[in-house]
Amino acid sequence: MDKKQVLALLDKFKNDEVSAEAVLENLKKLPYGELGYAKIDHHRAIRTGYPEVIYCEGKSLDHIQGIVSHMLEEKNTNILGTRASKEVYQAIKEITENVEYHESARIVIVKREEYKKSKKNILVVTGGTADIPVAEEAAITAEVLGNTVERLYDVGVAGLHRLISNTDILFKANVIIAVAGMEGALASVVGGLVDKPVIAVPTSVGYGANFGGLSALLSMLNSCASGVSVVNIDNGFGAGYMASMINQMSDGKDDN
Amino acid sequence: MDKKQVLALLDKFKNDEVSAEAVLENLKKLPYGELGYAKIDHHRAIRTGYPEVIYCEGKSLDHIQGIVSHMLEEKNTNILGTRASKEVYQAIKEITENVEYHESARIVIVKREEYKKSKKNILVVTGGTADIPVAEEAAITAEVLGNTVERLYDVGVAGLHRLISNTDILFKANVIIAVAGMEGALASVVGGLVDKPVIAVPTSVGYGANFGGLSALLSMLNSCASGVSVVNIDNGFGAGYMASMINQMSDGKDDN
Amino acid sequence: MDKKQVLALLDKFKNDEVSAEAVLENLKKLPYGELGYAKIDHHRAIRTGYPEVIYCEGKSLDHIQGIVSHMLEEKNTNILGTRASKEVYQAIKEITENVEYHESARIVIVKREEYKKSKKNILVVTGGTADIPVAEEAAITAEVLGNTVERLYDVGVAGLHRLISNTDILFKANVIIAVAGMEGALASVVGGLVDKPVIAVPTSVGYGANFGGLSALLSMLNSCASGVSVVNIDNGFGAGYMASMINQMSDGKDDN
Amino acid sequence: MDKKQVLALLDKFKNDEVSAEAVLENLKKLPYGELGYAKIDHHRAIRTGYPEVIYCEGKSLDHIQGIVSHMLEEKNTNILGTRASKEVYQAIKEITENVEYHESARIVIVKREEYKKSKKNILVVTGGTADIPVAEEAAITAEVLGNTVERLYDVGVAGLHRLISNTDILFKANVIIAVAGMEGALASVVGGLVDKPVIAVPTSVGYGANFGGLSALLSMLNSCASGVSVVNIDNGFGAGYMASMINQMSDGKDDN
Amino acid sequence: MDKKQVLALLDKFKNDEVSAEAVLENLKKLPYGELGYAKIDHHRAIRTGYPEVIYCEGKSLDHIQGIVSHMLEEKNTNILGTRASKEVYQAIKEITENVEYHESARIVIVKREEYKKSKKNILVVTGGTADIPVAEEAAITAEVLGNTVERLYDVGVAGLHRLISNTDILFKANVIIAVAGMEGALASVVGGLVDKPVIAVPTSVGYGANFGGLSALLSMLNSCASGVSVVNIDNGFGAGYMASMINQMSDGKDDN
Amino acid sequence: MDKKQVLALLDKFKNDEVSAEAVLENLKKLPYGELGYAKIDHHRAIRTGYPEVIYCEGKSLDHIQGIVSHMLEEKNTNILGTRASKEVYQAIKEITENVEYHESARIVIVKREEYKKSKKNILVVTGGTADIPVAEEAAITAEVLGNTVERLYDVGVAGLHRLISNTDILFKANVIIAVAGMEGALASVVGGLVDKPVIAVPTSVGYGANFGGLSALLSMLNSCASGVSVVNIDNGFGAGYMASMINQMSDGKDDN
Amino acid sequence: MDKKQVLALLDKFKNDEVSAEAVLENLKKLPYGELGYAKIDHHRAIRTGYPEVIYCEGKSLDHIQGIVSHMLEEKNTNILGTRASKEVYQAIKEITENVEYHESARIVIVKREEYKKSKKNILVVTGGTADIPVAEEAAITAEVLGNTVERLYDVGVAGLHRLISNTDILFKANVIIAVAGMEGALASVVGGLVDKPVIAVPTSVGYGANFGGLSALLSMLNSCASGVSVVNIDNGFGAGYMASMINQMSDGKDDN
Amino acid sequence: MDKKQVLALLDKFKNDEVSAEAVLENLKKLPYGELGYAKIDHHRAIRTGYPEVIYCEGKSLDHIQGIVSHMLEEKNTNILGTRASKEVYQAIKEITENVEYHESARIVIVKREEYKKSKKNILVVTGGTADIPVAEEAAITAEVLGNTVERLYDVGVAGLHRLISNTDILFKANVIIAVAGMEGALASVVGGLVDKPVIAVPTSVGYGANFGGLSALLSMLNSCASGVSVVNIDNGFGAGYMASMINQMSDGKDDN
Repeated sequence: MDKKQVLALLDKFKNDEVSAEAVLENLKKLPYGELGYAKIDHHRAIRTGYPEVIYCEGKSLDHIQGIVSHMLEEKNTNILGTRASKEVYQAIKEITENVEYHESARIVIVKREEYKKSKKNILVVTGGTADIPVAEEAAITAEVLGNTVERLYDVGVAGLHRLISNTDILFKANVIIAVAGMEGALASVVGGLVDKPVIAVPTSVGYGANFGGLSALLSMLNSCASGVSVVNIDNGFGAGYMASMINQMSDGKDDN
Repeated sequence: MDKKQVLALLDKFKNDEVSAEAVLENLKKLPYGELGYAKIDHHRAIRTGYPEVIYCEGKSLDHIQGIVSHMLEEKNTNILGTRASKEVYQAIKEITENVEYHESARIVIVKREEYKKSKKNILVVTGGTADIPVAEEAAITAEVLGNTVERLYDVGVAGLHRLISNTDILFKANVIIAVAGMEGALASVVGGLVDKPVIAVPTSVGYGANFGGLSALLSMLNSCASGVSVVNIDNGFGAGYMASMINQMSDGKDDN
Repeated sequence: MDKKQVLALLDKFKNDEVSAEAVLENLKKLPYGELGYAKIDHHRAIRTGYPEVIYCEGKSLDHIQGIVSHMLEEKNTNILGTRASKEVYQAIKEITENVEYHESARIVIVKREEYKKSKKNILVVTGGTADIPVAEEAAITAEVLGNTVERLYDVGVAGLHRLISNTDILFKANVIIAVAGMEGALASVVGGLVDKPVIAVPTSVGYGANFGGLSALLSMLNSCASGVSVVNIDNGFGAGYMASMINQMSDGKDDN
Repeated sequence: MDKKQVLALLDKFKNDEVSAEAVLENLKKLPYGELGYAKIDHHRAIRTGYPEVIYCEGKSLDHIQGIVSHMLEEKNTNILGTRASKEVYQAIKEITENVEYHESARIVIVKREEYKKSKKNILVVTGGTADIPVAEEAAITAEVLGNTVERLYDVGVAGLHRLISNTDILFKANVIIAVAGMEGALASVVGGLVDKPVIAVPTSVGYGANFGGLSALLSMLNSCASGVSVVNIDNGFGAGYMASMINQMSDGKDDN
Repeated sequence: MDKKQVLALLDKFKNDEVSAEAVLENLKKLPYGELGYAKIDHHRAIRTGYPEVIYCEGKSLDHIQGIVSHMLEEKNTNILGTRASKEVYQAIKEITENVEYHESARIVIVKREEYKKSKKNILVVTGGTADIPVAEEAAITAEVLGNTVERLYDVGVAGLHRLISNTDILFKANVIIAVAGMEGALASVVGGLVDKPVIAVPTSVGYGANFGGLSALLSMLNSCASGVSVVNIDNGFGAGYMASMINQMSDGKDDN
Repeated sequence: MDKKQVLALLDKFKNDEVSAEAVLENLKKLPYGELGYAKIDHHRAIRTGYPEVIYCEGKSLDHIQGIVSHMLEEKNTNILGTRASKEVYQAIKEITENVEYHESARIVIVKREEYKKSKKNILVVTGGTADIPVAEEAAITAEVLGNTVERLYDVGVAGLHRLISNTDILFKANVIIAVAGMEGALASVVGGLVDKPVIAVPTSVGYGANFGGLSALLSMLNSCASGVSVVNIDNGFGAGYMASMINQMSDGKDDN
Repeated sequence: MDKKQVLALLDKFKNDEVSAEAVLENLKKLPYGELGYAKIDHHRAIRTGYPEVIYCEGKSLDHIQGIVSHMLEEKNTNILGTRASKEVYQAIKEITENVEYHESARIVIVKREEYKKSKKNILVVTGGTADIPVAEEAAITAEVLGNTVERLYDVGVAGLHRLISNTDILFKANVIIAVAGMEGALASVVGGLVDKPVIAVPTSVGYGANFGGLSALLSMLNSCASGVSVVNIDNGFGAGYMASMINQMSDGKDDN
Repeated sequence: MDKKQVLALLDKFKNDEVSAEAVLENLKKLPYGELGYAKIDHHRAIRTGYPEVIYCEGKSLDHIQGIVSHMLEEKNTNILGTRASKEVYQAIKEITENVEYHESARIVIVKREEYKKSKKNILVVTGGTADIPVAEEAAITAEVLGNTVERLYDVGVAGLHRLISNTDILFKANVIIAVAGMEGALASVVGGLVDKPVIAVPTSVGYGANFGGLSALLSMLNSCASGVSVVNIDNGFGAGYMASMINQMSDGKDDN
């Protein structure tokens, strides 16, 4: 897929170092590890230095153990498991002692190298206390991916002074993750105060006409503030990943 | 329906002033005017001094003319027509010259007595300029119903300073009508700033995932601020009516 | 946020009684208690004499205990916990013996001062017996907030005589909270009978095409009666709070 | 399909009056007229004396003309066209002068025999004036099908006295069709007052959160009154047909 | 509410047999039993001879026991409890031994008089075996209400010959209850075969895009067959009640 | 239903070998086995050699045992039970030892004859590991129905090289079943790569705005690739059956 | 993408007939025609002999003209334009006189070679007359793609005898396209009668609770008949394409 | 709001250069221009050098003219109007000749200074030709905001080779905007190929079960690719703004 790699491979082929069949075979064998029930994508990890990520929900414990075992053998990067129940944590612990569990964030980490620390930071804000598990999923994901993360929790718009009193924290963030359930207004208010990208995460916190997070989701998609984009309901991981990508793109650069 | 009236009628009946059949007939004839296609409810108007209201949408011009004619004959109160197209306005004008039309609010008024002026005021705020038609429906309704109304338009949460700079206007209102489309966050933010009732009106302003006002509606129903209740999408009339009811209940009272 | 407070603070600053930095710091420190996972808003309570309210759902027991402890130390107002499970009640009991639990309403109260008693009353009506838990959340909330509350339960529109026989109770209420599931028609019928504000609470009582309360919610939002506004599905607290706000605004005033 | 007809045909076949192939052919040819683009079902009309019905929406004028022509030739029953635009009316008029058009009900009738008149009557009630077109579709359908129909319009629940004053009309009906938009509460209230079947017709009258009639539909499906069943939104024809079927089943019987 | 009763009462009042206050009190006291948490409607039962019905879901066991106790004291009619769990059954058994439980239909019956038996019968058909619990709720309800009921189960449209082989059973029914989940096509097919009213009951049987019964509900509401009306998803009781009402209206009459 | 059978039966009737009544009775008795709660359709199985299929969800264990017993007695074909819990498996085991259980696919099989093996194969692909249970339901169904099945799991579009590396497997399949949750893009991508029919199965794998599989369902229905059709969410059986039907239609034919 | 082509190209590269860069360039240039606003995919057409297809909706007339012009120059296959308005037809006519327009099906065809004629046929059935435009889109698409197509229109399930009388036509079809709006039951009924694949096309024909075709869509997705799969609402083209693919796969084969 | 500005103002106040009232007044007057119907936010424009933006939909022509006039007087930045009809364009032209109109993108620009040109570029890709108007809204927005923009249109996943052939263009982009309707799979596929942030824009292109863009929206929110976030349906402006923000944050930095 990578242009340079394809050109290199074709050069080898031309110099008779590899056969035509081998070119095709190589293209097939290279980028992933084959487990039958899973095809582990080493491609991105190699190129980006990012950890391997396992979305644990819906996978059997057997499959998760198999995937982790494979990863442990193949390379020396960190392993991040999201939406991990306690059972998943214990299943992985049977394979390696080197595993930590963040219960409210439902994250398991097999840490094999130190996380990097970005100069600029990502700020995670929440509307309420009940949004913290999703926020922590975002925050820990961003930390594992090499970012400095700051947290500002329970600053929902019903008590606006709590948010406004912390505008200095808002202003010094490079990327902001806004996590809120119910009416999800936090994303718009934060988006209107800062001039940095805001990744909005609707949560399923609430009841009745929040319809499992739909109210916050629609609210954030319809934000009248510019510079706000949205990930799936309760998708802390996705927000942490996106924020990390943006933060690290601009990390070496002088403040703007 | 009114206990005293029933008791009075029964007393007359007992004194042979009216027959049993007449009691039943009276109970039937009193409260509304019969037009066949419409039964005009004079009941509330008599009791409250409120104007007669016609919801014009979906009624034929013939029917509207008939209803207005009947009202003009029966009593001397003001007449308010909502969701009135220009055609409705012209149809009414054929019957009475004494009619004014508020085009953007889609309201017609046959004004036959001066509006009262409450001491305390109702404040109508909007998120944006495009919400003004709905806001005007609310504001004019409240004015016709005898309230002093103040307007504060285009103070949506994406530019929070526009709202906060006007906190004095917010604080001196007795009831607030918050009109907003898109993510509808205005209701929550206003609700968190004041300690007066907020009537939230979601509007259909927006596009895409606002689904005809659903986003603002759900947002407002899920408001994390207390003291917020909601009317139907684009229902300026309902908000104006509700706000008026609350405002006038407390109008004679000293400020709290 | 409060104009007078800001002016006062600025005066002190001008007289060199506080520094510029202190002004900013003061603005930040005043209005809430910082717990990291929660920012407790004392602002409204101070100004209004209202109790502190904790929405318990989705908060960990640890967090709830921390919040209650903080509140107990800071001020002497009552504390109201909504959507509280039995576990929440027991967790709070570990901190203070002075706590009562309303199981069906899922409310915990730490009562440290007597409730006020409004002269005018709030009436809570329900369509059926199964709506009582939501109605009790509304009623108890209103009582804790200082209102005299009357209850009229199981007067749904399928047996209209049950409602009409109680019109005197309807007529003497100052504000009405109408709680109903299924088709939620109660709000419209009550709204058509009285000339006081009706706060409608759709409940999730029902099955099939009630879609978790959606049928009652849409029904109430589309009420053809004026003077009806709506809160979230099952949101007894919100209705009690809104009704209290309206009731107390007009409490000192002569009947209209 | 009819057991007796099959037996009769089989008898003929056994007596060599018809061949096996003819039996099959007969079974195929009998029950409908073949036009290629339409297969006109004479089956029910023959058996029940009911008129032929054409649902005009979505059919081309050519097709409608073809269907009517075929019907005119085949039998001498009345022809009813529903959801007929003015263009449809004119297209049919080109074929036969003997056609009348009910504009608001969007019904065309080719009347070739007098309607019957049931002894018991069907009552059509509406919540408002704007529901009248759907109500008329129901009423005219029932009349064409041979029923005595009474109308009681604009008796929505927001002015309950208008409905209660007419309880005698409600009580003497044999079947009731309740037509209402917005919150559709009329069906429940009527269903609670009478002990006859109520056919509820939700209409799309309203705006915003009525979502094209969804609010009234859900409301009626969730009716807490027993003896209420529901047809599609705006389906006046379906309600008229169903009510007619029920009314005529019991028409000869003494009052119960 | 009943014209004759009101006239009678008024006559007594005129003859000084009762006071005006007593008239009002009488009007209030007559029609229901007051339990505080429930207002038991004896009105319909008295007039129609129908049993008292308790919708058990969402009611506490205490409340149900209270309601049943009240009913046992007041009158001698049968008592029907729907949506009754085993716990409800046992709670009622503590009060009276004379109670039977239909587990799959979730119905409890306190039988104090023999059921009547209509001459004409109601037919309950289902699409599949999994629809039987809802069908039984309908069938038993209809039986308790005095109808002869026939059952024809598992005749869904995917194996049409199973339905067509039983057309004689379909033809001899006076009213048909069609119970089906998934695509709910049974109602249309049955409606097209017979000329008697069909009460369609969508069930929540199915998965995925049946969305809790929505697919069958919409399918039945959009039936292209005339003479079909619909009750709520899984509402066997409502269908049984409606069918009974229709069946008994025409029961004494000769077949048509 | 089958023309030839009807003609044959009619011939016998004509030759006095059977009576008219017997013809009707025969038509009724032939095609299914009657159990009261179930009508077992032997019709298709006889004609097609396909196994009998039981959809177990929602059926009581008693009913399932009865159905299996009946099938075991009647014919010697294989029996397939879908959506079968462990309890279902054990209930069947009480009747016959000859039963195997595929737990993740929730399938039970009573195998009484060897499966056929088609020359051409059906390929089952999944987007992720969590989609495997649905994929296995499809794969095992297709195998029981006599097809050669190949599996290619975890080739979702987020790591496109995993799919593209396996294009040879895609190209040699005769029919493809594409199983995916979340955004369900796999169906479109596969559909764009091959020129064989793709049966798309949306799964409920995911969370938040996947709304129980709705996102994948809508995605697949809106596929911009031609040659894709869709079955219900999580309906592995339906996809396996449809794919088998297509595969076997073309199995004897030379490759195109 | 095609393994053989890649191998061939690589061989040329190895023999120095093409450079590495040229390999990449070739891979890019081959499969589509570049117009800037459109990339015309010749790939499938070359391989399959299928015509080029243009989905016209939402494309500007300029763009459509550009695309057709390009196609006319490049190859000599037929060109099929779907969802084509009269304006589109006229715009194409400016470019080539050789264009025919099927108005109700909204299809334009530039016919440059004779259609093939399959031995086996595809049957298109509709529930009603109003479904014919979608059915014609399917039928004409299938004809252009080289299939023999039979039509059987207006055989909806409300008049089941119309369908059953034509079972011979159903039985001799190789693939069936079932087109229906409203409750969409046709697909299930047909699917239960035949043992050939049924492609179900929900249409938006209907009103009210059909919600733009949602009722038929859900109905068809939940079909209790096996061997039914579904395409998008009103997607006649997609059904014709899918049916053609299946039909031609088995066309040379002896009947099974 | 800006800490430094507040501190500066407070310093002036302390030095008696401004009064306390003036401080409050200043805080109010500074950040926006007051037009009554609109409050123009100069705040962000001043700080960021970004142009003023007017969302034209739903605003009256009078209001738009007023807003533009105000902007023209106040500052010398560019003015961008989105969702602008031809009427809007003409209304603005009456005020200033210096205005250009992008019809398909519905954008008007009053250009008063040259756009900047970023070193890194933003790539806008579309699934089809019909998505181009939304894509152009995004592209032009990004250009006006100072970015170098590249376009790659009509590379939807149904013809995957069109996308893969352009991987070099994908790889050299700094931020990617993926615009797609129908199943919206483009975002996932692109997100899986690159390691730069992808802003996904669902469009309302499609019909039937795309439900106005819902299918693409849900698809994109559920993307299994990391590094994808989503804006509202058809919100080209929002995507262009967000992409610009990210692109310019990293623009001065060396490639990573």
